[in-house]
Amino acid sequence: MDPTRSSEDEAAAFFRAAPPLRDRDAVAANIDAFVARHSRSTGTGGGSVGVVCVTSGGTTVPLEQRCVRYIDNFSSGQRGAASTEYFLKAGYTVIFIHRRGSKQPYCRFLPEDSFLDLFELGEESEIQVPESHTTVVKTAISSYRKAIDEGLLLKLPFTTIFEYLQLLQMVSTAMNCLGHHGMFYLAAAVSDFYVPWESMAKHKIESAGGPLNMQLNQVPKMLFILRNHWAPSAFCVSFKLETDPDILLQKAEMALRKYGMNVVVANELANYKDVVVMVTSSGKTTVSRRSKADDLEEQLIGLLGKMHSVHATQPSSDQET
Amino acid sequence: MDPTRSSEDEAAAFFRAAPPLRDRDAVAANIDAFVARHSRSTGTGGGSVGVVCVTSGGTTVPLEQRCVRYIDNFSSGQRGAASTEYFLKAGYTVIFIHRRGSKQPYCRFLPEDSFLDLFELGEESEIQVPESHTTVVKTAISSYRKAIDEGLLLKLPFTTIFEYLQLLQMVSTAMNCLGHHGMFYLAAAVSDFYVPWESMAKHKIESAGGPLNMQLNQVPKMLFILRNHWAPSAFCVSFKLETDPDILLQKAEMALRKYGMNVVVANELANYKDVVVMVTSSGKTTVSRRSKADDLEEQLIGLLGKMHSVHATQPSSDQET
Repeated sequence: MDPTRSSEDEAAAFFRAAPPLRDRDAVAANIDAFVARHSRSTGTGGGSVGVVCVTSGGTTVPLEQRCVRYIDNFSSGQRGAASTEYFLKAGYTVIFIHRRGSKQPYCRFLPEDSFLDLFELGEESEIQVPESHTTVVKTAISSYRKAIDEGLLLKLPFTTIFEYLQLLQMVSTAMNCLGHHGMFYLAAAVSDFYVPWESMAKHKIESAGGPLNMQLNQVPKMLFILRNHWAPSAFCVSFKLETDPDILLQKAEMALRKYGMNVVVANELANYKDVVVMVTSSGKTTVSRRSKADDLEEQLIGLLGKMHSVHATQPSSDQET
Repeated sequence: MDPTRSSEDEAAAFFRAAPPLRDRDAVAANIDAFVARHSRSTGTGGGSVGVVCVTSGGTTVPLEQRCVRYIDNFSSGQRGAASTEYFLKAGYTVIFIHRRGSKQPYCRFLPEDSFLDLFELGEESEIQVPESHTTVVKTAISSYRKAIDEGLLLKLPFTTIFEYLQLLQMVSTAMNCLGHHGMFYLAAAVSDFYVPWESMAKHKIESAGGPLNMQLNQVPKMLFILRNHWAPSAFCVSFKLETDPDILLQKAEMALRKYGMNVVVANELANYKDVVVMVTSSGKTTVSRRSKADDLEEQLIGLLGKMHSVHATQPSSDQET
C-alpha cells in the first residue's frame, strides 16, 4: 500500500468525522488576514524575519460527546510560552496555537492561581503589586501590549485534539504562501490515541457497571501531511518527549526521517527545562541551560533562527531534504 | 457480605496503594491548626457560624506513573469558587479543596488567560485596569485579602484522585471534632474509574503498537466512609451531575439514600448555572437563577445555611437520619 495515500485517507477520515470548529469561518478569515499582512513584509529586509506557528500545551480526547470525561496529555505550556517571547524578541511574528488555560507568553512567571495573591490595594485604593514583583509585572504588561498593539502576535486557543488539528491545518495552509519564510515549532503535546466522534458514547458513561473497558484508535500522523501537503516549504521543528531516556534519541531520529522534519527537539520529562538535544540530518546538538535564572528557550530559538535563515535563502525546489 | 466492611476494605486498599501526598505531615498539621482555631469560636454565638469544606474542580486519573497522559473530569470549578464566596459572606469559615488551575473565589469573573489583557500601564507607568473593570477588580482584591488576613479561608490544591481523596480524608477526620457545626459541600467532579498505582505503566505508553486497550477499576465510594466514619455528625451536601435529564433525579435520590447525604444537589451539564434541584429526604426544591446577573449559588447557599442551622441544634445522636 502507498504510505502517502494511506496517511491522507486517514487524515481526511479524521477531519470528516470531527465536530466542526466553532466559528470556523471567522477564525479562518482572521488567520488569512494575519498571514497576508505579514507575507508582504516578511523576508524583504524591512519587516518581520518570518512568521512562526508555535503550538503549545496538551490536547484532550473526549470520551463522551457531551463531554464530562476526557483523556489529557500533560503539558504546562511553559516551553511554548517562553519560546513565543524569544521568537518575538528575535523579530518573528508569532501565531500561538495554545491549550486554553495553559501558560501564556509574558505571564509564565506568575505563580499558579496567583492573580489575587499578587495584587493589593494601596492607601488610596490604587492597585499595586509588592515591591519585589513590580519590575517583572510592568515589563510583562508593556512587552505584551507592544506585541498585541503592533499586530505581531495572534493567539488561537484549543482544547480537544479535534480543535487542535483543525487549527493546525488552517494555519499551515494559510502560511504556505510564505514559502521558506514560514516556520513551525510544534511544542504541543498531541494525543496519540482518540475515540472517533461517531463511535463515542453520547452521554456520561455509567459507573455502576463495574470496570470500564475502552478501546482507543491511533490519531493519524498529521506531521506527515503538514510536511508534504499543507506547507511543504516551511522550516519544521517538532518535539519528542519521553520518560525513558534509553529510547528518546532513537525515537527522535525516527521522527526526523519519517516526517521529514528539519529539526526534532528531544526532551525528557524529568529535565526538559534544563537540557534538550536538537536532532538534525547533519547531527545532534545538546542545548543546556546555563543557570536557573536563564531560559533554555533563549539559546534554542537563537540556534533555530540561524538555521531558519539559511533555509530561507534556499531555492524553493530544494526543500524536500 | 457486609457492605460496610467491603467499602472500608476497598478504601483502605485504595489508600495503601496510592502514592503519598507531598508534604503530607505539614499539610495535616496546617489543617488541624486551622480547624482547632475555629472549633473554639464556632457555634458559640460570637464567631463563625460553622466550618464548611468546599471541594471544587475535577480530579485526574494518571495512566502512567511518570505521568504524561491522564483521564480528567470536566469541571471549571465555577460552582465551588462562587459558593466559597457566598459561604464566607454568610459567616462561614471555608476549607477550599480545589483542582490546581480551576476557578478561584473572587477571580472567577476574569476572562480566561486575561491577566495581561486586563492590565495596562498608565502615563507614569503605574499599573491600572480599564475604567470598566476598576470596581470589580478592586472589590475582588479587598474581599480576598480580608478572607485571607482574617484566617477565614484555607486553600488546599489537588490534581489527581489520589491527592483529592487523601486531602478529603485529612480534612474530614480533622473536622469531626466540630460535630454538627461542620458542613461538607462536595462539588468536585470526582473520577469514578482509576488505574491502581501498582498496576500502572511506569513509562509513557508506546503509540506504535496500534489501538490502545485499557481497563479501569471503580474508585471506592468514599462518601459512604466520610458519612459513617470520618465525620458522621457533619451536614453533608453532595452533587450529582448528569448529561441525560431522564436519569438525573433518580440517580440523585439513590445517592441520598445510599450514602446518607443530607442534601444531594442535582444538576445537568447543559444548564447547571441556571437551575439545580435540591433533593432531601423530605422532598425536592428547585432553585433557579433569577437573572443572568445573579449567581444561583447565592440562593443555594442561603437555603443550605438555614438547613444546616437546624441540623446544628439537633442532639448528636440524631444525625444518622
